[in-house]
This record gives sequence, structure tokens and C-alpha cells, in this order.
Amino acid sequence: MERAEIIGVGTELIYGETLDTNTAEIARSLEAYALKVERTLRVVDEPGPLAREVAEAWERARLLVLSGGLGPTPDDVTREAVAQALGEPLELDEAMLSQIEALFRARGRPMPEANRKQAMKIPSAQWLDNPHGTAPGWWVRKAGKDLVLLPGPPSEWRPMWQEVLPRLALPQRAYAKRVLKTWGLGESEIVERLGELFLRGEEVEVGTYPKVHGVEVVVRGREDLVAELSEKIKKKLLKAVWGEGEMTLAEAVKRRMELEGATLATMESLTGGLLGAEITRLPGASRFYLGGVVSYSVGAKARFGVPEERLAKTVSAETAKAMAEAARTLFGATYALATTGVAGPDPLEGEPVGTVYVAVAGPQGAEARRYRFPGDREAVRLRSVYAALALLVT
Amino acid sequence: MERAEIIGVGTELIYGETLDTNTAEIARSLEAYALKVERTLRVVDEPGPLAREVAEAWERARLLVLSGGLGPTPDDVTREAVAQALGEPLELDEAMLSQIEALFRARGRPMPEANRKQAMKIPSAQWLDNPHGTAPGWWVRKAGKDLVLLPGPPSEWRPMWQEVLPRLALPQRAYAKRVLKTWGLGESEIVERLGELFLRGEEVEVGTYPKVHGVEVVVRGREDLVAELSEKIKKKLLKAVWGEGEMTLAEAVKRRMELEGATLATMESLTGGLLGAEITRLPGASRFYLGGVVSYSVGAKARFGVPEERLAKTVSAETAKAMAEAARTLFGATYALATTGVAGPDPLEGEPVGTVYVAVAGPQGAEARRYRFPGDREAVRLRSVYAALALLVT
Ligand SMILES: O=C(O)c1ccc[n+]([C@@H]2O[C@H](COP(=O)([O-])O)[C@@H](O)[C@H]2O)c1
Ligand SMILES: O=C(O)c1ccc[n+]([C@@H]2O[C@H](COP(=O)([O-])O)[C@@H](O)[C@H]2O)c1
Repeated sequence: MERAEIIGVGTELIYGETLDTNTAEIARSLEAYALKVERTLRVVDEPGPLAREVAEAWERARLLVLSGGLGPTPDDVTREAVAQALGEPLELDEAMLSQIEALFRARGRPMPEANRKQAMKIPSAQWLDNPHGTAPGWWVRKAGKDLVLLPGPPSEWRPMWQEVLPRLALPQRAYAKRVLKTWGLGESEIVERLGELFLRGEEVEVGTYPKVHGVEVVVRGREDLVAELSEKIKKKLLKAVWGEGEMTLAEAVKRRMELEGATLATMESLTGGLLGAEITRLPGASRFYLGGVVSYSVGAKARFGVPEERLAKTVSAETAKAMAEAARTLFGATYALATTGVAGPDPLEGEPVGTVYVAVAGPQGAEARRYRFPGDREAVRLRSVYAALALLVT
Repeated sequence: MERAEIIGVGTELIYGETLDTNTAEIARSLEAYALKVERTLRVVDEPGPLAREVAEAWERARLLVLSGGLGPTPDDVTREAVAQALGEPLELDEAMLSQIEALFRARGRPMPEANRKQAMKIPSAQWLDNPHGTAPGWWVRKAGKDLVLLPGPPSEWRPMWQEVLPRLALPQRAYAKRVLKTWGLGESEIVERLGELFLRGEEVEVGTYPKVHGVEVVVRGREDLVAELSEKIKKKLLKAVWGEGEMTLAEAVKRRMELEGATLATMESLTGGLLGAEITRLPGASRFYLGGVVSYSVGAKARFGVPEERLAKTVSAETAKAMAEAARTLFGATYALATTGVAGPDPLEGEPVGTVYVAVAGPQGAEARRYRFPGDREAVRLRSVYAALALLVT
């Protein structure tokens, strides 16, 4: 199989000052093509070493993708390094320069001299527009190979990559992947339930990946086998499966609210706003989410309608339900979700770290679930958010 | 400078099913030595490609560190690949085999045949004990170079690495690193302000890294030069610098609240709870953070005390200030922060995506700042959170 090479550019990626997730995301986007990714690289932003790595990768690859190092500062050297590796001159493109200058004008300030180099490219490169930043990308097609140069920030490279990837005419393969998303079952419980369906063959393969939003069951391989096996697996896991593919729990909740024409409110304690934040990540959230309260102190809980007798022991199913009821009334919503518990690092009210109650209130009354989550403060908080959302979809 | 090469082994690292953070952590642990890390690699667990990468890295490097692929399964191939790259035979070490068998006996079960290969090494390798797992590491010293082979799980490789690193007798250097964190200045503005201080020499080097929480100015190099240069840079950037090192904006806010014995509340619109979530990530947040309101609908704003006349145009400085004042009163807090604006994807009230107002209310009254952030919905929301926090510390 021909090879794809992926390089993340930036000294900060090597040292983890910025976490490199770009190269992995780009690798995943290539899974559907008949290209092999044998390695990914993170390289310092120095023209010499970078040019050497680019030259070597370019020689082996059918496709070479670089992300990062297209900014205006002296350590943004990807353009130079690629020019050197491909043996082409870097030339100023007056049209692109005007475009970048116009961008700055629209923001009411002159273009700093430093940004000039963002308008430079090699003759064989075509520009890739950047709707979310000043750095345009490059697409080079040469000797039957493709080289794509993307900016580093995901909000900038993602739309650019989506746009150019289908145009690269990469070799296809009959490959399929289905991701079944579950809540409420552990990895070993899933493996046990699946039994013989937990296939690890050449043609189709099942994997389980525990995530904070529950275990993902991934089926990969020949298209027809993947389809058949996924359906069988779904039957075994029943309503633990709340979604597929890129779907998030918040999206599953949104879908339900829209189907029912319902509205939603929240009252959060240990999650401190994280639940509302997860819901409002979705464009269109304002069509069903009315708002929420972060009742991080006992005083706040009282002020927003949690009855006096529920305030002595806040880490409890009863308080969680009272919070959900209070939020539902306060906002006049169809449903309301609540979280209360111990994120840590210390125990609280005699309950160990990870003890969490989530509750939902709706037209049919209120219901709470109790959890004892593993992990540190942030993990407990994240899991609590997903546990609360899961109340509405599992 | 001589080079260090670091390779993370595992197909799951390439696709991000497991995030590769090991190579970055190992790179950071080498910062104090006179070795240059020009790149890090993630390589598939296949003997052919891996052996080729190892051979190439070994040729360039003074030190080569590999992590992962030492388990018992068929796709744990690091030992074979290294043996092949170094042209040495893999041999069974009976003493190590007994040790591994004893480990299993202690756990009350026989050693699976598959674990046998964990007792194999090349003649030039010394064993590195693994107190937390079955896979011992290797240390190879050959031709004035060192090769270290570590397991993948951090709990296993960390103690092993700590133990062996000082024994490698790597070239030392007087190295230091300072990270200055700023808000309110763009990368090119900083470069301009720094002028000649933006040094990129062999002995000391300045880099700028734009983050959602503002631009980080990193000074690396010889200890005395780093100290001197950092102080000069701080003077140039004045109060745009809100912290250093691992400090976050929320921590800077917490520090101020604690110093003043003050309390804090929030009222958020477009950030939907993200601001409260960022504040409550900090252990001890409940000592100053009373709570917040997510006023995601106009009705919610009215209910929580935003005056009628501020509801017609919610994306405005006046509404942001009214929200902060309302939150301050509602929770009886010393200070309150508010956010309102357009996260997108569509314009709102005639304002383009990225238009954001943040406000702070305190004993001295209220103040708002206006921003036009680039990026997508999530980027705009995150930047709004940091902009709000920055109101209290810049
Ligand atoms: O600032 C506000 O009062 C406010 C409250 C809720 C939503 N918005 C913005 O309104 C737009 C539509 O919201 P949404 O969640 O339905 O996509 C989007 O740009 C949000 O950031 C703004
Ligand atoms: O559930 C609640 O009502 C609640 C409200 C605020 C804080 N907590 C928890 O109380 C502990 C101390 O909070 P903090 O923010 O001061 O570290 C920590 O475990 C939090 O998760 C819990």
C-alpha cells in the first residue's frame, strides 16, 4: 500500500506545551483510503531539521500532510522548510498579500510587516483559503503525489482539510468503521455480553475503548461484515447504546428535546457549569435550553428553591431530585437535570471522592442515579456531566 | 549539540485511540541535558517499519528512547525490531524467565506462554526492573551511545526512567525555562514590542505561543541569560503578563480573591456555564466562588435581575455590565463576572460571530470590554471565558 506521512510542526508539540492531537485526527481522517500511516512525526520549528524530515517523508509518501508553523513569527518556518525540501523558490503572491492586508483592515488595524510571509508560496503550490485566520494553506500536486500544508489551530485547519481532502483523488478502499456509543456498562461487561461477537479477524475486528462518555464499541473492516456485525452487537447491548459515530450525548439529548418539542434547564453543583457548557456547545442550543444555575454554595441552593430540609446533606439522591425539580420550576422547563457530589480532592459529608448523584425532573416526576466514579477531580466532573445527560437518553 | 531521539511505539498512538503523551514527557525530562530533540515519532507496531525507524534514529542519536510494545501480545514487537535494527540476536534469559514466572506464581496463576518473550533480550542489553508490571526494560550502551527501551504505561515507565536517566551520564547544561503568560496582546504585537529582546540565539531563545488564554512568551536557554531576559521582557509587556509557568487565569483570579478575602459570582450567556466550570476546576473554589447563573434565554436574564431596558439588545456593553451587577446582587458577592455575545455559527442582533462583551462588577462599579474573536463557536466561547477572567487580573 502507498504511504501517507503526517508531520506536526512545532517545538511546543515535542515538549507537550501544546498537545498534538492534530496528527492523530488527520490519520483518522485517512482511514477510509488505501494509504498506510506507518508513523507520525512532531518536528521542531527550525528550517534545517524540518526541511530534512520533509524531504525524507516526501520521498516515501503518496501524501504528505503538515500542520503548524504558518504563523507570522520568526519561528514559523514551515513554508521555507518545504520550499527547501522540494527545491523550489518561495515567492511573494501580491494577490494573497492584498487579501491578508484587507483582513487586517476589516479588523481596523494595519497588517504588521511580519504577516507578509504568509503571502509567500512556491510556484507549484495552490492556495487553500483560511476562513478563520490569516494563514492560508498550500496544496502541492507534483510527480503523482500530494503535499498539503495546514495551519495548526483546529478551527483553522479542519475546514481547510475537509475542503481539500476529497479533491486529492486518493486511492479508495472498501473499508468501513462503525462506532457504537454506550453508557452504563463496563468494558469487561461488554466483552462478556458480546461473547462470540467480539471478533478479532482479518476481515472484521471489534475493539472496545473506554471513554469518559462511556465505552465505545468500534467495529472495523469489510463493509458488509461491519454492517451485519454492528446490528448484532446493538441487539446485545440494547438501550445502553445511546448513539453512533460522531454523535455526542448532548446531541442525543438535543435530538430528543426537538422530537418532543421540549425545553431543558439545569442546576449544577460539583460540575460548576460544565453541564450547561456541554449542552450549549451545540449550535441551536438556545432553541431548547433555557438556562441554568450553578448552586456551588448552600446559600445558592436555598435561593434557587431547594427546600430547607434538603440542605443538610447535599450529596444525596433526595437533594439531587430536589435540585432538578427546583430548576424545572424556576425556568418553567419541560425537563431539568441536576448534579451534586464529591469531585475531590477530599471527601465531603463523609462521602468518598467520586460519589455523585445526578437527577432528572420531568412531567412524570423526578429520578436520581448514584455513581462512584474513579479518577481525579476533572474526570469525576466530566463523568458527572455525561451521567446527567445519559438520564435523558438511556 | 548531540541528539536525542524518542519513539512512541503503537498503532493506537498514531490514531489517537491512546493519546501519546509519553514522548513529550520524556522530552521534557531531557531539557536539562545538552541534547537536542529535533523530532519525536509514533510508529506502528509492525517489525519492519519499526526496525527501519529505529535503525535510522540510532544512527543519528546520542540517546534513543523507545516506549511501548513490550507486552506479551503478538503486536508487541519492539524487542524484535530493536534487535534487528542493531544487528544482534534475541536470546532467552533463563534468570529473567524465572523472575517473570515467579511474578505470576505470586498472583496465583501460571505464566501464559505469551509472556515468555518478555524474558528475551539482545546480548548488549542490561535489564531494567519493572516494579509495576511484567515487562522489564532494556538499557543498551554501545559505541558511546545509549538506547533505553521502556514499557508504555506511565505507572511502569516513569519509575524505570527516573532510575536509569541519571546513570546514562548524558552531557549536562545549565538550562532554564520561563513561561510568561499574557492577555490582551497579539503575537505580532508582542514581537514588535520586544524588538531586539526577541532573541533566537544558541544560548538563549524566545518563542511566542498563542493560546486561547493569551500568548505565552517562552524563554529557554542558559540559566542566567533566561533570568535576565525574562525580567526585561516582563518590563516591556507590563501588566499584560498575568502569570508564569503552570499558573492558569482561574488560579490568578483565585489568588486575588484569597488575597482580598473576596467572593465571586457569575452570569453567563454565550459561554453557557464554561466560565463557572473553569473556576470550579480548582480545588478549593468553594472558598470564594458562590455560584452563577446561565442566562441563556432572554426570560432567564429578566428573572435574574437584568433590567427590562437591557433586554432588547443583549449583545452590548451595557447588558454585560447589567448582568455582572445583577449577579453581584443576586449572590451577594464582592465581584461578579458576566459574558454575552455571539458564539456563532450565525450572526446575532446584527453582530458578527465573535463579537463578545465581558464585564466585571465590584465595589468600585462595573466595567466592560469588547472583543471580536476569531475562530469557531468553541474557540469564541473559550476565549470569552479567559477574557472574563482577565478582567480581574490584567
Ligand atoms: O449573549 C447572549 O445573551 C446569548 C445567549 C444565548 C445564545 N447566544 C448566542 O446566540 C446564538 C444562537 O445560540 P444557539 O445556542 O442557539 O446556537 C449563538 O451565537 C450564541 O452564542 C447569546
Ligand atoms: O454537590 C455540591 O453541592 C457541591 C458544591 C460545591 C462543591 N462540592 C464539592 O465539595 C468539595 C470542595 O469543593 P472545592 O471547589 O472547594 O474544592 C469538592 O469535592 C467539590 O466537588 C460539592
